Amino acid sequence: MRVVECVPNFSEGRRPEVIEAIVNAAKEVPGITVLDVNPDHDHNRVVVTFIGEPEAVSEAAFRSCKKASELIDLNQHHGEHPRMGATDVIPFVPLAGVTMEDCVQLAEALGERIARELDIPVYLYEQAARVPERRNLADVRRGEFEGLRTAIKEEGKQPDFGRPELHPTAGITAVGARPPLIAFNVNLDTDDLKLARRIARRIRESGGGFKAVKALGVMLGERNLAQVSMNMVDYRVTGLLPVYEAIKEQAAAAGVGIVGSEIVGLLPLQALLDVALQAIKVESFDTSQIIETHLRSE
Amino acid sequence: MRVVECVPNFSEGRRPEVIEAIVNAAKEVPGITVLDVNPDHDHNRVVVTFIGEPEAVSEAAFRSCKKASELIDLNQHHGEHPRMGATDVIPFVPLAGVTMEDCVQLAEALGERIARELDIPVYLYEQAARVPERRNLADVRRGEFEGLRTAIKEEGKQPDFGRPELHPTAGITAVGARPPLIAFNVNLDTDDLKLARRIARRIRESGGGFKAVKALGVMLGERNLAQVSMNMVDYRVTGLLPVYEAIKEQAAAAGVGIVGSEIVGLLPLQALLDVALQAIKVESFDTSQIIETHLRSE
Repeated sequence: MRVVECVPNFSEGRRPEVIEAIVNAAKEVPGITVLDVNPDHDHNRVVVTFIGEPEAVSEAAFRSCKKASELIDLNQHHGEHPRMGATDVIPFVPLAGVTMEDCVQLAEALGERIARELDIPVYLYEQAARVPERRNLADVRRGEFEGLRTAIKEEGKQPDFGRPELHPTAGITAVGARPPLIAFNVNLDTDDLKLARRIARRIRESGGGFKAVKALGVMLGERNLAQVSMNMVDYRVTGLLPVYEAIKEQAAAAGVGIVGSEIVGLLPLQALLDVALQAIKVESFDTSQIIETHLRSE
Repeated sequence: MRVVECVPNFSEGRRPEVIEAIVNAAKEVPGITVLDVNPDHDHNRVVVTFIGEPEAVSEAAFRSCKKASELIDLNQHHGEHPRMGATDVIPFVPLAGVTMEDCVQLAEALGERIARELDIPVYLYEQAARVPERRNLADVRRGEFEGLRTAIKEEGKQPDFGRPELHPTAGITAVGARPPLIAFNVNLDTDDLKLARRIARRIRESGGGFKAVKALGVMLGERNLAQVSMNMVDYRVTGLLPVYEAIKEQAAAAGVGIVGSEIVGLLPLQALLDVALQAIKVESFDTSQIIETHLRSE
């Protein structure tokens, strides 16, 4: 089975009927399973997660992008989250039977189609980026809808597909490919936000810590606990266990214990298997040793 | 999907054509998947593992038991492993969509059928045992084929199904139900067999250690390493992680490290998920967070 995940972000988090129309446009493609629809009122943004065969996923991404371009006007859009398009980003994620390279090709084909059929320019980002400056989405999006109106004509900011001109209402869309992202939080047994922030700075890649880890220290208001909140952007580069153990060790050095951790939303099975096999130091293991892998083939 | 595993042990580990005939008798039942055939020459015994829907698994167990009774004569059988029947034991294991109680009922129905159709008496053991003395298979089998010829007539040793008389060539069979068993070994960074034995004695249930853990200290000849070799007889009672950590701690107290561990053969996915979630102390988790659980429903 070939399975790709797609996690498009649309610039609408407040009007349920618009969100529903966008999600339905994806759902109506045969073979598509919508796993999650996560709107945020303050961000005025919705994150949709669906999976299916590569061709179906690409078609669903196109149709939902088209629907968003019909219903969302960036000139009227305000929210806390930075954005540049009605469909802001479309990442493809290889899940089973497909490679990252397959997902890069999906991104290129979809980017070309969005520009040609919808007249929305497209940046290719992350693993699909053609130049290093477009790897990081935050860099790509700098200036947002308003700023990119003029910046898009500048050297180095021209789109990968389409004319160097924003769509008047739908702006510009970033299409890319990336590994599955895991949202992983560790709750410290303290209300010391500074400690959580200090640990976050030490463990994240930008602070010289673990590669492929983004981390912030935040407060869990309702429980009055300090939390190290992370995005594990490639669990194959850095898995959950070494990061958890580093946080535990650094908290212990400050005399603080761990209350527990949470995995927010979805993650690939392999990320948990990696934790298990590392935790008990299994020397060699084959997935076929898991009884359930034999149930599916019947 | 309802899935039961069956792991019958037959008293033949040397004649490939006999083993093949027994396995084929199970395989020919529609819906049966044979996962493993593991003959042992010294034990003169073969362990067969197959899965399927409850009814199919029961039928496959019956047919392989019948075939074994036609091809194996216990009067001619010698091997290191204790045994009392051509088909020595038939355990049913609940894997998915079935309860332990369902497996106990499977064991009862199969035991009754074996006695009635094959004239082989049957003991019910482990979770299917009707009296506490038949919970432990080693107790049930005491005396073996030769000794049970007369003992079976005694009070307390009479079979649960069938006449109190061994089948002249096929002996008597134990049919039961049990949780999945996991073979888990931890290799110490030493050739000190005594240390492995001391740790094994401390961690196993019979030594006052972890419930549902059997353990021995053995030597890994080819690598010259001492190993704590375990049967985890109910991972829901005692999981792999606490046992691994106890062994690691006790070895460290003797100044010895852990080289690594091995999981021999099959195990249920949940046993590994438990390790992962405990190792990073996840506070709450739903299996539907695993992306792959959504792939099957399509």
